[in-house]
Formats: sequence, C-alpha cells, structure tokens
Amino acid sequence: MHVFEDFNSTREYSVKARNSGRWVGLVPTMGFLHDGHKSLIQKARQETDPLVVSIFVNPAQFGKGEDYHVYPRDIERDIRVLKDLAVDVLFLPTVLAMYPDEYSTFVEVERLSDVLCGAFRPGHFRGVATVVLKLFNVVLPHKAYFGLKDVQQLVVVRKMVNDLNLPVEIVGVPTVRAFDGLALSSRNAYLTPDERKDAARIYQALSKAKALIEAGERDASDIKEMIQEYIAQAPGFSVEYVSICSFQNLQELSSITGEVVIAVAARLGKARLIDNIIVG
Amino acid sequence: MHVFEDFNSTREYSVKARNSGRWVGLVPTMGFLHDGHKSLIQKARQETDPLVVSIFVNPAQFGKGEDYHVYPRDIERDIRVLKDLAVDVLFLPTVLAMYPDEYSTFVEVERLSDVLCGAFRPGHFRGVATVVLKLFNVVLPHKAYFGLKDVQQLVVVRKMVNDLNLPVEIVGVPTVRAFDGLALSSRNAYLTPDERKDAARIYQALSKAKALIEAGERDASDIKEMIQEYIAQAPGFSVEYVSICSFQNLQELSSITGEVVIAVAARLGKARLIDNIIVG
Repeated sequence: MHVFEDFNSTREYSVKARNSGRWVGLVPTMGFLHDGHKSLIQKARQETDPLVVSIFVNPAQFGKGEDYHVYPRDIERDIRVLKDLAVDVLFLPTVLAMYPDEYSTFVEVERLSDVLCGAFRPGHFRGVATVVLKLFNVVLPHKAYFGLKDVQQLVVVRKMVNDLNLPVEIVGVPTVRAFDGLALSSRNAYLTPDERKDAARIYQALSKAKALIEAGERDASDIKEMIQEYIAQAPGFSVEYVSICSFQNLQELSSITGEVVIAVAARLGKARLIDNIIVG
Repeated sequence: MHVFEDFNSTREYSVKARNSGRWVGLVPTMGFLHDGHKSLIQKARQETDPLVVSIFVNPAQFGKGEDYHVYPRDIERDIRVLKDLAVDVLFLPTVLAMYPDEYSTFVEVERLSDVLCGAFRPGHFRGVATVVLKLFNVVLPHKAYFGLKDVQQLVVVRKMVNDLNLPVEIVGVPTVRAFDGLALSSRNAYLTPDERKDAARIYQALSKAKALIEAGERDASDIKEMIQEYIAQAPGFSVEYVSICSFQNLQELSSITGEVVIAVAARLGKARLIDNIIVG
C-alpha cells in the first residue's frame, strides 16, 4: 500500500490509473477505522481499482467547542486495517497542506446544510462539502463511498456533485451496527459502559418507528413523539432532534409518504450520537 | 466546429481528447465577442488542442437591478467569429441546465470577493467562482484563459483553483485596447458617441499613474487622488473606486511596493467601466 502525504503523488497515481482505463475509487474517512469503514472499503474494493482511502480529521467541519482536538486517532492501527483490506493508496494530507495560511475558499450547499445536524452544528456541512470537493480534486475518483449513517452528509455531497457537475458517482453504503443495533461510530469510544448500554435505545426507537409506519401509521408528529419519549427514558440522554424528512431534499414531513428518513441526534455523556433509518 | 448544448457531449469530447494525450483549453466567455476575446482565444489556440470556448451569460453573477436582461448578445455572429478562429467546440449551456430548479450550491472565495468591484456588486464573485467551477467540471480543461482586464476575477479564480486543488492551470491574458486606450468590453456598446470619447480618460489616468510610479512616486493616496480628479473632469463620469492594491491578494496599499494593481471602476451613462494596469 502506498501512503501519500503529498497531493502530487496522489494525483499522479490516479491520473496514471485513469489513463490506463482503470476505475478509481475513494473512501474519505477521518480515521479510527471501525467495521462501518470496513464495509465502505469492501464495497469500494469490489467496484473500483485502484482504491484510495483518505484519512483526514478535517478542522473545517468542527465548530468551536466541538471535539476536534480529542477526536480519536490511531494511524498505526488504521494502516494495518487498510493493508488487510488490500487498499492501494492511503492519502494522508496534513492540515497545513489542506488549509494553508490565507486559505479562504468554501463551498456552501444552501438549505440542505441548515437543517437537522446543520441547525446544531453551524458551518459543519460547509466544512464537509469543502473538504470533500478538495479530496475529489486531488484523488480524481470515478466513484466515492459514503456511509448512510451520516445521511445528511450523503445528501449534501450528492447535491454538491449534481449542482457543481462533478464527474464523480456517489455511492451510499448501509449503516453497520453493533450486536444491539447501535450504529458504529468512532465517537462511540466516548461512552462509558453504562452509557454504551443505553445508547442502543436510539436504534430501538427507530426500529419501532419503522414498524409503526409499515403497519400504516402516517402521522409524523406521533411517531416523533414516541421516539423522543422512548430515548428519554434513559435519564442520561438529551435528544437534540427527531426528524422525519424526505430522503431527497431533507424537507420535514407532516404526513409520511415516499422515501423518508427518520433521523435522530442525541447527546449521551460526552458523545453526540446520530442515527437514522430510511423507510419506503 | 462542434456546438454542444448538453454537458455529456462536451465532457465526452474532452475526456476522449485527454485520454489520447491531448491538452484541453477553455476560454469561458459571456459572448458578444470582441478583440479582447479573440486575443484570449488566439493565446489558447497556440497552447492547447482541442480548444473549447464557452458562451454563457451567467445570471448568478448579476445583482438585482444590474444589466443581465439587456447584456448584449449576438450568438450568430459569435459562432462565425469562433469558426474563423478555428475553435474546436463551442459549449453553449442553457440557464436551466446550469441552474436547474432547487439549485443551491455556491463557492465563496472569502476576502478577495468583498473588495474592489465586490464591494459594489455583492454576490458577483460568488456567481463567477461558482460558474467557473461548474464549467471546469464539465469541460475538464488543462488550461483556462482569463483576461487581465477583469483582474479581480482572475485573482479570485486563481485563488479558488489553489484552495480547492483544482487540476487546472489559469492563464492571464493582457488587456486589448481601442486606438485611444479604452479597454475593450462588451459593455462599451452601452456608450453614446460622446461618452465613448470621454471613456478614454480611464486609461489615460492609469497611464499617468504608471508614469508617476516609474518616476519614483510611492504614495498611493496622492496617485489615487490624481486619477480620481482626472477622470472626474469629464462631467458624465462617476468614479466608484480607485484602488492601488497587491496583485497577489488585492490588499489596499498605502505605499507602493512590489507588483501592484492600479484599478478603476466608474460609471458613464448606462455603462459601468472597469480597467487596470499592473506595475512593478
């Protein structure tokens, strides 16, 4: 596996592959890889060659007071994981190379960035869109893979790709869950053992909601109330939002119709957990 | 010459050329071509093959009350001009294809977009950066050509390319002037014959400024005052700004040192005229 810090080596590798008719894949990550990442990489490995994985904890998508400085990192272990998965290139840019002094260009995907998590993390999706565009411009992938756990990120990136006419195909990959349903996330490392047990309530609530919809329930506010109450039964939880919205444009729905996302964000101890289910 | 309205034909043409090792050039224009455009195209023609010219009057870079709807257009004549210049592809997208319903993604080059013309045309350079990025993503050029007359546009686009790691080289091409020094611009068509005579004052003032600097003058405010007064001697003129700033980052200078831009924007009748000289 090549480990490239610099942009030119990465791009040259990709251009060479493209010129010989190969199909370049990219899995952008912030590292501290878990089975959710592995699932993305395995999917990408099946569909593209060469496969580039990037690891970059992107300061532009963390707000003030968020966990940028304590975000878990373990690059040695990540490298072993990526080698085992037969990844061709690890792209590992430095913060200074990505955001040199006087850096000043940002991409805004309006409307989609201001709802759900965007309402609680101002500037987050601007940082996400910007770094993803930069990674695309360096790695020049044909296909890029994003987890459905971060559904708003997927929708924002897809919209950016469409709006900006980027020659990249975006692939959404299903969420990987622990034995009890908790969506895998690097941030689960923040949970104490007791909190970790309670954390499963999010997926349990989402599953109940899905069952209700499949049984014919169409009133979004009733379902949201049920989710909110079910999660809040564990006293450590503080629910940030429960949303039932269109998968296409994240618009909040009062009546459930079409392909909808049921999404939750909640704080538990030091962790901010998000999860969602897509129904319909 | 191919005339492509749709994005896929344009991109496929470019990808095919790239794959056979050719060097794709792009000259983005808003049409109503004059000798300034011709100069860009001739430069690009020497350095790239195939050469794509785009014509798109970009609504996103016009503010409310600006001249979007009356901006001069003559596509039949433009096509003849481009054929004479041996252009390979005219890319002629529609407004609806560029900005479909619910379009919502914009690129901001902060700081550089708020000074000079940006201070008088809020949102203008956001529209410019966004459309240029879109054109790059469709045409996939190796090199793109911009006139130095629109120096702030050139600086903003260059900054965007650096910040976003775009694999495109930006080439600035010297301003083409009429017999009396007036910078060629599609908007000169708005001038009455009397205004057209007075319009030459801008370049005359810039030339005087250049001579003063070359004679050793270093005080920016003295020079700016001279320019302002010289232009205002023609009573129809209303000067928007006179700036002496760094070519690198457009920061206003009090003392003249290094490569500086002397830039002017002024209204005359129905036209808003801009021009500049680079000294040093």
